[in-house]
Formats: sequence, C-alpha cells, structure tokens
Amino acid sequence: MPELAYLNGKVLAIQEAFVSIEDRGYQFGDAVYEVIPSYNGKMFKDKEHIERMVYSLKQLRFPEVSEEYLYNELNLFFNKAKLKRASVYMQVSRGVYKRKHYLPDIEKAKIQFVMTIRNITKDDVETDRKRKKGISVITVNDARWGRCDIKTVQLLANSLAKQTALDARVEDAVFISEEGIVREASSANIFIIKNGIIFTHPKTFNILSGVTRSEIIEIIKKKNLTLIEDFYTDRKLINADEAFLTGSITEVMPVIFVNGNQIGTGVPGKITKDIYDLLCKRMTS
Amino acid sequence: MPELAYLNGKVLAIQEAFVSIEDRGYQFGDAVYEVIPSYNGKMFKDKEHIERMVYSLKQLRFPEVSEEYLYNELNLFFNKAKLKRASVYMQVSRGVYKRKHYLPDIEKAKIQFVMTIRNITKDDVETDRKRKKGISVITVNDARWGRCDIKTVQLLANSLAKQTALDARVEDAVFISEEGIVREASSANIFIIKNGIIFTHPKTFNILSGVTRSEIIEIIKKKNLTLIEDFYTDRKLINADEAFLTGSITEVMPVIFVNGNQIGTGVPGKITKDIYDLLCKRMTS
Repeated sequence: MPELAYLNGKVLAIQEAFVSIEDRGYQFGDAVYEVIPSYNGKMFKDKEHIERMVYSLKQLRFPEVSEEYLYNELNLFFNKAKLKRASVYMQVSRGVYKRKHYLPDIEKAKIQFVMTIRNITKDDVETDRKRKKGISVITVNDARWGRCDIKTVQLLANSLAKQTALDARVEDAVFISEEGIVREASSANIFIIKNGIIFTHPKTFNILSGVTRSEIIEIIKKKNLTLIEDFYTDRKLINADEAFLTGSITEVMPVIFVNGNQIGTGVPGKITKDIYDLLCKRMTS
Repeated sequence: MPELAYLNGKVLAIQEAFVSIEDRGYQFGDAVYEVIPSYNGKMFKDKEHIERMVYSLKQLRFPEVSEEYLYNELNLFFNKAKLKRASVYMQVSRGVYKRKHYLPDIEKAKIQFVMTIRNITKDDVETDRKRKKGISVITVNDARWGRCDIKTVQLLANSLAKQTALDARVEDAVFISEEGIVREASSANIFIIKNGIIFTHPKTFNILSGVTRSEIIEIIKKKNLTLIEDFYTDRKLINADEAFLTGSITEVMPVIFVNGNQIGTGVPGKITKDIYDLLCKRMTS
C-alpha cells in the first residue's frame, strides 16, 4: 500500500491534503503533534502517544478530544496503509479562524486533524548505521519557549539547532540552559552514565516527556540500575562514561563526542548497548 | 471590492486559499509574517514592513527573496482589492518538504507567499473606543523563544498571554523577563513616561523592532523630548506617569492600569495624546 494522508476523517494522497491559510496551525503555530513508529506492521506505544497528545491539547485549552477518538482514527488509518516499517505523523491544529491573537471560542467542529504515514527512508537506514558507531553532538543555548513539555509545532529553535549541528559537521545539538543545565537534544531526550549511575533531566516545562524516555526508565528500573532524575551540567555530560539520546525514531542513539570531547572510550558503551537491546525486544515483541 | 487572498501569484477568495499539510509553516512554524494597515486607500509604511520581512527571512536562512518582488506583489494585490481601511496580512513560509528538522536545501521555488486583505472590523472600531479611554494590562512572564526580533508565526506564547489577559478581564498582557525587565505586549511595543522622560526597551533579540515603534521614536526626537532606550523594570512601569503600547494595528494605545495599579491620573496622558496626534497626521498624510 502507498504512503497516505488523513484529513479530518478522509484518507487521501499526501500531495492532495491541504489546509486553509487561515488555519491557526499555520498562522500561530497553534497545533500539537506526535510521531509514532511501527515495527513489523504494528505501531509501538501508540496509546502513550495518544495520551501525550491529549495532554498537549489540554495544556493549550483545545476543545476536548477523546483518547478513544484519536486512537480509533489512528488505527483505522494505520490499517488502511498496511506499511510494515513506517512512521505515522499526527497533528491537531485549532482550525480556521479570522486571525486574532486571543484563543477563539472553543469549537470542536473546527479542529483540523491530519496524519501522514510514510515508509522508513534511506535517512533512517543511515540512522541505523550511526547507532552502531555512535554520534557527535554540540551543545547550544536553549532558545526555545517555556513550554517544551507540550509537543507543539513551534519547532524553529529545534530546527535551527539541528541545522547548526549539521553545519558544524556533527549529528545533533543538545540544548543547555543559561545555568549550564543539560536539557535534551533537538528532537530526543538525553541520558548520561557515570560510574554505573544513570542521570537524566527530570520532567519539567523545559523538556518533552518522551515516550521512549519513559520506556528506557522502565528498563533501567527492571535491570536494577540506579537512575537519578535530576539537573546536571554540560561539564558532567562531557565527563560522562556513556551518553545516549532517546526518541521514538531515534530509539537509543549513543553519543561518543560532545563539543569535540570524547565520551568514555569513544565507542558506544556497554550499558547503553544493553539498554538498547532490551528496548529492541520491546519494540518488536 | 471584496476581501481577498493571494497565493503564490494568484488572487482568490480567502476561503479558497490552501496550503499543503506538509508546508513547513504548518509543521515547524517555519514562516514569517507582516501586518500592514491602510488609511484612505493607501498603505502606511509598506516599505518598512517589507524591509523587516526580508530581515526575518535572512535571519532564518530562507532563500533570497528581494524587497522589490515582495513590494510589487503586495502593491498589485492591494490595488486589486481597493479597500479603503484595511489590513493586509503577508506570510512567507519555507514551503513543502518531507518532514525533517534540519533546514531543507534552499529552493526558492518552494517558498509559499500568501496574503489576505480584510476590512477593518467591529473589533477594530472597538479598539478606537478603547484608545480614547485607555486600557488595563497585566504583566506575565516572558515564555517566548529567544528570537522575538524575528517576526515568525511561533505565536503560541503571545496568543496564550493575550488570552490570560482577557481571562483576567483586562485588555492585554506585557511580557516581563525573569529579572523583571519590561519587554513588550502580546503584539505591541511599550513606552513609559516619567517626569517628562520617555523610556522604551532597546532593540535586542527579545523584542520586535516595531515599525510603529520606529515612527514614534522619530516623532519623539522631532518634538525634542528625551528618549531613553534602555532596560527598565515592571516597578518603574507601575510608577510611570504615562504608558502606551504601539503597533501597526494598535497605533498608540494608552495604558491606565497595570496589574490593578493606576498609571498617572488614570486617564490617557498629555504627552501620549500629543504623540498619537502626530502619528495620526503621518498615517493619513
């Protein structure tokens, strides 16, 4: 089956899916999204993604959209496409209104619910190659807005940070607060390991509560490893024994250089690999 | 003539203007915009708006779009609509690409250039009424991203701040930095007056360099009033003799209450009125 789009209940070709230029998603970035991977023709953690989308919608005071509705539409759409290894992109925007800054009166009917489903591409195969070798990252000042816990389409700072990384001939950028706190990468969470102890930024307004992040935390706890969810600095990141990014498409990505400094022995670490193996089992089970 | 839309060179009804769901403006907030008012069938400061749009595009590394091109398209479109008192909304987004965080290879052909022109509405007549009486505002923490000098569509923080103001039964919200520095309102710059001296936030990444702000500064200088473009706190705002917002649609809006504290005598101040009269002469000349 081909790659497809979904627009408010209709399934159509991606090239044929359009929204009004006065959609608030287009004029105000007033939209939330999710990206859900599939393995062997089954979506992974679709319920958790839907839950997070409903959280995002609530935070932005959208009209109430039920988890059941989103879940059913997503699954109908996914089953129509029948792609084995794919990523589903879901976006809900507030809809079409005459342009005014204040939130328009809640009208459920106006919400735009769009999806696309696409095959995993060459870029993602490239990702597999990088996962084996480990990647290099740089740190950048976090210039994003104050509610990164909400998965909105206000992604320019993320986009520019990713491009800054590519310009510096590394794979990704990690956002650092003014105080030097390590937050997350341009579209992934980050974990570090020092002397067998694992650290990651706690859930606050400044990071996304990643679905894969939660999965990794579960894995860490089941393995009886020590996890500290607390603030840590870029200095600690650079001095880590291991470091890795996590995300729905990223999965687990070992980091072997930060700002030109080698992490550990410069190859993906043992604990990172163990954790990734356990994640793989979950993804494909 | 009716209200109209413009889409990549074509003029059409606003209801018929659509963009792809994979436009980066929709998926990443990767777009810039301008709003230009007209008086007596003539646009005010259209060249300055175009200059700022080109600045925004450059900052975001868009393909080069010339001022001449934007200016000519804008004027052709405006002349087609022949609306006397209108606002023109212009937006340029990076265009349609398969969704990836990094900036796609520069392709001028893919840029989407959209415009709408609309009559001044009842809301704006309401604005005139408020202008005579003065408005109340609240201060809110500035949760916007770090490049508010670029006029992007990443406006959720602005939108939510405006709504917070309306919920508090006041007209607008003024963004304050963590250190208590007064930045600007949800879609307008802010000036205060104390003992005959006028203060406004300097041009930095944290405020928009308003076209009306520049015009007001010119007026202040011509009147030989003292202007200090420097940081000042919310405490100073509350203790001001006069305060006013400026913007292309806002024009000059006197502020008479801040967080429930009366500014000056609780009516629009004399200097504010003088400045607004001079702006009006420029707008309609």
